[in-house]
Amino acid sequence: MNFEHSEKVVELQRRVSAFMDAQVYPNEDRYHREVGEGDRWQPVQVIEELKARAKAEGLWNLFLPESEYGAGLTNSEYAPLCEIMGRSLWAPEVFNCSAPDTGNMEVLARYGTSEQKKQWLEPLLRGEIRSAFAMTEPLVASSDATNIESSIVRDGNEYVINGRKWWTSGANDSRCKVFVFMGKTDPDGEDRHRRQSMILVPRDTPGITILRHLPVLGFDDAPHGHAEIVFENVRVPVTSMLLGEGRGFEIAQGRLGPGRIHHCMRLIGLAERALEVMCKRSLSRTAFGRPIAEQTVTQQRIADARIAIDETRYLVLDAAHKMDTVGNKVAAREIAMIKVAAPNMACNVIDSAIQACGGYGMQDRFLAHAYAAARSLRIADGPDEVHRNQIARMELARYRDAA
Amino acid sequence: MNFEHSEKVVELQRRVSAFMDAQVYPNEDRYHREVGEGDRWQPVQVIEELKARAKAEGLWNLFLPESEYGAGLTNSEYAPLCEIMGRSLWAPEVFNCSAPDTGNMEVLARYGTSEQKKQWLEPLLRGEIRSAFAMTEPLVASSDATNIESSIVRDGNEYVINGRKWWTSGANDSRCKVFVFMGKTDPDGEDRHRRQSMILVPRDTPGITILRHLPVLGFDDAPHGHAEIVFENVRVPVTSMLLGEGRGFEIAQGRLGPGRIHHCMRLIGLAERALEVMCKRSLSRTAFGRPIAEQTVTQQRIADARIAIDETRYLVLDAAHKMDTVGNKVAAREIAMIKVAAPNMACNVIDSAIQACGGYGMQDRFLAHAYAAARSLRIADGPDEVHRNQIARMELARYRDAA
Amino acid sequence: MNFEHSEKVVELQRRVSAFMDAQVYPNEDRYHREVGEGDRWQPVQVIEELKARAKAEGLWNLFLPESEYGAGLTNSEYAPLCEIMGRSLWAPEVFNCSAPDTGNMEVLARYGTSEQKKQWLEPLLRGEIRSAFAMTEPLVASSDATNIESSIVRDGNEYVINGRKWWTSGANDSRCKVFVFMGKTDPDGEDRHRRQSMILVPRDTPGITILRHLPVLGFDDAPHGHAEIVFENVRVPVTSMLLGEGRGFEIAQGRLGPGRIHHCMRLIGLAERALEVMCKRSLSRTAFGRPIAEQTVTQQRIADARIAIDETRYLVLDAAHKMDTVGNKVAAREIAMIKVAAPNMACNVIDSAIQACGGYGMQDRFLAHAYAAARSLRIADGPDEVHRNQIARMELARYRDAA
Amino acid sequence: MNFEHSEKVVELQRRVSAFMDAQVYPNEDRYHREVGEGDRWQPVQVIEELKARAKAEGLWNLFLPESEYGAGLTNSEYAPLCEIMGRSLWAPEVFNCSAPDTGNMEVLARYGTSEQKKQWLEPLLRGEIRSAFAMTEPLVASSDATNIESSIVRDGNEYVINGRKWWTSGANDSRCKVFVFMGKTDPDGEDRHRRQSMILVPRDTPGITILRHLPVLGFDDAPHGHAEIVFENVRVPVTSMLLGEGRGFEIAQGRLGPGRIHHCMRLIGLAERALEVMCKRSLSRTAFGRPIAEQTVTQQRIADARIAIDETRYLVLDAAHKMDTVGNKVAAREIAMIKVAAPNMACNVIDSAIQACGGYGMQDRFLAHAYAAARSLRIADGPDEVHRNQIARMELARYRDAA
Repeated sequence: MNFEHSEKVVELQRRVSAFMDAQVYPNEDRYHREVGEGDRWQPVQVIEELKARAKAEGLWNLFLPESEYGAGLTNSEYAPLCEIMGRSLWAPEVFNCSAPDTGNMEVLARYGTSEQKKQWLEPLLRGEIRSAFAMTEPLVASSDATNIESSIVRDGNEYVINGRKWWTSGANDSRCKVFVFMGKTDPDGEDRHRRQSMILVPRDTPGITILRHLPVLGFDDAPHGHAEIVFENVRVPVTSMLLGEGRGFEIAQGRLGPGRIHHCMRLIGLAERALEVMCKRSLSRTAFGRPIAEQTVTQQRIADARIAIDETRYLVLDAAHKMDTVGNKVAAREIAMIKVAAPNMACNVIDSAIQACGGYGMQDRFLAHAYAAARSLRIADGPDEVHRNQIARMELARYRDAA
Repeated sequence: MNFEHSEKVVELQRRVSAFMDAQVYPNEDRYHREVGEGDRWQPVQVIEELKARAKAEGLWNLFLPESEYGAGLTNSEYAPLCEIMGRSLWAPEVFNCSAPDTGNMEVLARYGTSEQKKQWLEPLLRGEIRSAFAMTEPLVASSDATNIESSIVRDGNEYVINGRKWWTSGANDSRCKVFVFMGKTDPDGEDRHRRQSMILVPRDTPGITILRHLPVLGFDDAPHGHAEIVFENVRVPVTSMLLGEGRGFEIAQGRLGPGRIHHCMRLIGLAERALEVMCKRSLSRTAFGRPIAEQTVTQQRIADARIAIDETRYLVLDAAHKMDTVGNKVAAREIAMIKVAAPNMACNVIDSAIQACGGYGMQDRFLAHAYAAARSLRIADGPDEVHRNQIARMELARYRDAA
Repeated sequence: MNFEHSEKVVELQRRVSAFMDAQVYPNEDRYHREVGEGDRWQPVQVIEELKARAKAEGLWNLFLPESEYGAGLTNSEYAPLCEIMGRSLWAPEVFNCSAPDTGNMEVLARYGTSEQKKQWLEPLLRGEIRSAFAMTEPLVASSDATNIESSIVRDGNEYVINGRKWWTSGANDSRCKVFVFMGKTDPDGEDRHRRQSMILVPRDTPGITILRHLPVLGFDDAPHGHAEIVFENVRVPVTSMLLGEGRGFEIAQGRLGPGRIHHCMRLIGLAERALEVMCKRSLSRTAFGRPIAEQTVTQQRIADARIAIDETRYLVLDAAHKMDTVGNKVAAREIAMIKVAAPNMACNVIDSAIQACGGYGMQDRFLAHAYAAARSLRIADGPDEVHRNQIARMELARYRDAA
Repeated sequence: MNFEHSEKVVELQRRVSAFMDAQVYPNEDRYHREVGEGDRWQPVQVIEELKARAKAEGLWNLFLPESEYGAGLTNSEYAPLCEIMGRSLWAPEVFNCSAPDTGNMEVLARYGTSEQKKQWLEPLLRGEIRSAFAMTEPLVASSDATNIESSIVRDGNEYVINGRKWWTSGANDSRCKVFVFMGKTDPDGEDRHRRQSMILVPRDTPGITILRHLPVLGFDDAPHGHAEIVFENVRVPVTSMLLGEGRGFEIAQGRLGPGRIHHCMRLIGLAERALEVMCKRSLSRTAFGRPIAEQTVTQQRIADARIAIDETRYLVLDAAHKMDTVGNKVAAREIAMIKVAAPNMACNVIDSAIQACGGYGMQDRFLAHAYAAARSLRIADGPDEVHRNQIARMELARYRDAA
C-alpha cells in the first residue's frame, strides 16, 4: 500500500499544471468570447493555438496506454494528469485528451486495420480531425448495450446502415469526420452478445441527417454539442467494419471502462476547482460584518468538500490500479462504483460552491457549466441506477449461496 | 383548523387550470420558438395574445389584494391560483401576475401619489408596460437592505442618482419603462432604517447604462433577463420619490414579504409539474424489462416528492394566512421559513424528475429551466443562510432569558 | 382554509400543557428511578398517581371520538393535545391515551358486544387494566395483513388459537389482561380480505408463552415492553370473536389509521421537545469562546428543525381533517404520507439535538430514548418502504391511463 | 501508487479473520449472556479465555509500533487487521488491542520511565490489568485540550490532584488499575500549551469517587463503561509524572492521532459487517412476493454502502500512510478528515442495514449497539464540528494570502 505517485508522474503533474496556469486559465474569457461570436459550431481559434503549444511541449495524447501511438502511461499514471486537465471544461481537447476521441482512438489503436489506422487514427492522433461515437438510441434504454436496435446489413461489398442515435457528442463539430457506429448485424443471433458490430462511418456519407442539437441542462456545449441523428440507408465499404461482425459488444466492453474512468478523473479536477473558487470567494465575501469563510456553515461545506473529493480520488485511483493490473473486465465493479461516486460528489461540491458564492455563484459561467456537466454524468454512460444495481448484484452474489 | 378552499377559490382554480390547459401548455413550443428567433430581448407575440385572452376572461391582476385595482384576493386565496400559474415559467405574465411587476404595482397602489399611479400603475395594471426593481448591489451583501450604498441626493427640484445595481430582473425587456430604485438619501442618518429611500426612475433617463445580462445557471431568461446596471448622475424630478425620504426600508419590508411568498407559491406549481412529468415518463419508460414506475427506487422518489410538495404547500398556506391575519411584519418568521423550504423542495423534486427521465430529462427544456429557476431562489431575495439564521434567532429568543 | 384551533381546543391545549409542566416534567427523574428499581416489569407508582390526577382534572380518554365513552374530540381536535402529551415518552399513559390501548378501546367501543364492553372496555377506560394487540408475526412480512398465518379454528363453543407473534407491545406489563389477536379463520377463503378474524384472548389463558422481550435499538421499554409470544392450543369461548368471523381485515383497516396518526402526533411533540433541548443547550454551551447558539452551523440546524416540524404538523393536521371529513379509508394516502414523514422528521431533529449537545446529548436519557422511539416508527406499523410504494402507486394511478 | 497489502499483512489478515470465524462470532451469544448475568461490571469469562488463545497464536498487541513491546507494525499494516477486529464490538480486547489501553500503552512505551513501564506497561501488555484515560471534563469544551481545568499541584514528594472528569471509558471495569490523568500543573503559565501535565494515578488511590456510569445512547457498555469521576485531594508520588511537568499537551497530541485512526479502522469493519447482515437478510426476507434483495431500493442501499465503505477505507489508509511517513503532527489534516468521514459513513451504513432488516433490524443486538457506537464517535474525541472547522481552516489557509 503506497499513496505516492512516481517521480515521472509528479514531473508530468508539474508540467501539466504549469501549462494550465500559463495557457488555459488566462485564455478562458477569450475562449468564451470566440465561442459566442458568429457560428457557434465552428472551431475555436484559441483551442487550435494551444493544441500546437501542448503538442510542442510533449503534453499530447497522454491518455493512450499504447506507447507506439501515445504516452504509454498506465491508468494510474494518467489519472492525476487527467484530473488537472479536467479543471477546465475545454482544456482536455488542448492536450488531445478529450472524449469521445480518446475512446475512439483507443479502439482504432487496438482493433483497427492498418488501413483504418492510416485513414482515421493518424489524423486523430495529430489532432487534425475529430470523431464521434454513435451508440445511444432515443427509443431504447441504451445503458444495456444489447438493446441497440440500429441495423447494419451487408449488401455485396457494402454495409447498409439504418437507425436513429442521440447524445452523439461532438457530431456537431465541423472537424468531426468519422463516426464509430454501433448496430446489429445479426439481430436474431442466439448469443445476444454477438449480435452487435461496430463500424466506421465517414461523417459526410450520404444519408446522415443531424436532426437537432440536444442541450444538457440548458447548455448546448458548442462547438462540440450532442446530436440527435438519423442514419438512412447509409452505405460504407465492408472494410469499414471494426474487428469483425459480431464483435461490437466486445469492443464496447473494452471502450466504456476507460471512457468512464476518464470522466471520473476529470470530475475530480472540476470539483477541486469549484472548491478553490468557494474558498477564495468565502475569504473575500463579507456578510453581517465578517468574511463568510469565518462562518461555521461555510467551514462545514469546505471540509465536507475536501473529504468527499479526496475519498473519491482514492476510489478512482484504486479502479485505475485494478484496470492496470487485472483488466477492465475484472475491474467492472470498481468502474461502476466510481461512475456513481464521482458525478454525485462533483454535483455536491459544485452546488456548495454556488451557494457559498451567492449571486456571484449563480451567474458564474464556470460553476454553472461545471454543474451541468457533472449532473449530466449521473445519467450519461449509464445512469446511477443501472450502476448501483450492478454493484449490488455483485455484492449480493457473495452471499447468495449462503442465504 | 380547516383545509378546504372557499367555493370562490375553487371556481377560480378551475378557471385558471382550464386556461393553462387550453392556452398555455399547447403554446409552449411556440413560445420557445418565438424567443429563439431574432432578437431574444424583444417581446414575444404569444404572450401578448394570451394576455388579451386572460384579461378578457377576468383572470387578470389576481395577485393584487387592493380591490380597487385588482382581484381583491387575500394571500390565502391567491396562493392556490398562483401555484397553478407557476406550473409554467412564463405563464404568470399572461395573467399580469409576474415578478417584479407584482411587487412594484403593490408599492404603487399602496404608497403612490395619484400622479405616480396615473403615470405608472395604470399602464402596469393594463399590462402595457413592465417595470424593474433596482435594489441588489454587486459590492455589498444586499440581503441586509441597510447595506445598500447607492446614493440619491437632492439638488433643487431634482434628485441625482448614482450607483451600481445587479440582478435587476426584467430591465432588459424592451417594454420595461420604469425602475423602482433604492438608495440612500441620508447615508449618515442616526437611524439606520431611515437612511434609505425608494424612487421612481424612468427607464430612458440619461445616465443609465446596462452593462450586461446576467445568466442564471446558464439561462439568460430572455426576453426578461437580469441586468447589471450603472446609474451615473441620473436626474429625476422630486415628485418621483415614493412615500417620502427615509421611507425606503419601510417600503422594502412591506414589498419583500409578498414577493417571496409569490415565488414560493409558484415553486409549488413548478414542483407539481415536475412530479407529473416524472410519473408519466416512469410509466412509459422501460428498463431491464419493465416500466421504471414499477421499480421501488422510482416509487420512493415519487412518494418523497408527493410528501415534500404537500408539506411545503401547507407551510406556504399557513404563511399566507398569517400575512392575511397578523400582517407581513409579524409573519416574518413564516415568510423566512417558506423562503428556505420551497426552493429546496422544488430543487429536490425537479432533480428527481430529471434523474427518473434519464437522457430525456437531461435535454428537456422545462425540467432544466425549472431547476435553474428553483435553484436561483435559494440565493435570490436572500440566500438560505440569511433566512435560516433569522429563523434560528427567533427560535432561540424564546429561551434566551431562561438559559 | 383556516389554521387556527377552536377555543375549546386552545383551552384544552392550555390545560394539558399546564399538567405536563406541573406533574410530568418534574417527575421524570422519579419515573426513571422507579423503573430502574427492582422488577422492571412491574407498574410504576408515579404513573398510577398521575393517572388519578389527570382523571380528576378531566384530562382522560381524550383520544376517543365516541363521546359516550371518551372526550368526543375529532382527530383534528385531538392532534394538538396528543402532540403535547407526546413530549414525554411516558406521559400519554397518564392521560389514558397510550398505545396500544387507545386502538383496542376504539375497536371495542365500535365493534364490541355489550358483554365484551363490560368485561374489557370499561376497565380499560378507567385505566385499571391494559391490553395488547397481537398482530405482527416474525415469519411473514406483516405490513401486508393478508400474510398473517396464525390460525383460529372453531371447535364447538370454543376457538382454538395457534401462532407466533412478535412486537406485541405491552404484553410484558403485569397489568395487561387481554390481547386483541388477529389470525385466520378461513385460510383458504376465496376473498383474501375475509380470511382473517380478530378475537379477544385473556392474558392468563393457558397455552400463552412469552418467549422474550424484544429490545428496540437497545431499549427494553420496561415496564411496557415488546414481546415475542407463542400461542399453543389457546382456547377461548366463541363469544370472544370481534364483529364476526372474516371481519378481521376490516377491523384492522379501521384500527391502523388512527393508531398511525396518533404516533405521528406524538412524534411532533417529541421533536418539539428535542428542539427545545437543542436551543437551551446551544445558548448555555460555549465552544471556542462563544455560545454554540451563535455559530451558523447550529443556527442552520435549529432553523431546519423548526421548518421540518411545522411542515410535518400541517401534514398531520391535514390527514386528521381528511379522516374526520371523508373517513379513514379515503384518507389512506394522507395517513401513509405522515407515517413516512413524521418518523423521519423526528429522527432528524432529535439527531441534530444530540449532535448540538455533544457529550451531554450522548448520555441524555430523553434524547437517546426519543431517538430510538422515533427510529423504530420508521419500521413499526409498516416500514417506510411499504408506505412509500403505496403513495407512489396512488400518484401513478392518476396518469396510468394517459401513459 | 499501489493498493495492495504486503504478503506479511495478507497473511495476518487471514489469521485474524480465521480467529474471528472460529472464536469470536460463535461466542457472541455467550458473551452477551455472561455480561447479562449477575454483576454487569465484572470481567467476562469468554474474553479471558479468548485472550489466552489469541496470545498463544501470536495475535497480540498488534497495534503497537514499538517492536520491543508489540508487533512492530506500521499504521498502514495494522489498519486492515484492526478493521477485522472491529467487526465485533468486543473482539479488539481479545487481541489486547482495545481502547483506551492501546493509547495508554503507547504513551507508556514511548514516555514511561523504566519503573513506570515495569509497574504498568508490562501487566497491560500481558493483558492482566486495564487502564483508563481521564481527560474530558464535564464543565469545559474538552475538544480544546487547553481548556482542561483539573489541577495537579506539587506538595513535597507528592502531587495533589483535584478535578472532575467524565467519559472516562473503562474506569468501571474491575480490572482497571490505573488512570492516565490530565490536569494543569501551571495554570497561569505563559505558554498555554505547557500548562498541562499527564500523571499516572492508581485506581485505588484514596479520594477517587465514581459518580455514575454514563450510558451512550442507551447502552451502558458494561463491563467497560464510561464513568463520571471526582478526584478530591488524590495524592500520588512525584515519580508518577509522565515525561515531566508541562509536557501533557505534547503527549496528548501524540496520543490522540493513533487513538482516532484506530476508531476509524474499527468503524470500517463495523460497517462491513452491517453490510453483510443487510445483504444476507435481503436475500432471505421476502415482501410482496419476492426477496427484498431484488428491489431497487435495497440495491441502491447496498451499492451506496459498498461505495461509502471503500471510499472511507482508502481515506483511512492514506492517513495511516501519512502518519507512517511524515508523522502524526503533519498528518493532523488527514486524521481530522477520517474522524469526520468514518463515523458518519458507519452511521449511514448501519442505519440502512437496520431499515433493510425491518423488525429484525430493530431488535438485533449487533446492529443497535453498532449504531450507538458509531454515533457516539461523531461526538467523542472531538465532535464533527470541531474537526470540520480545523479541516476548513487548513484548506482556506492555502488561499488566504491570495484573497
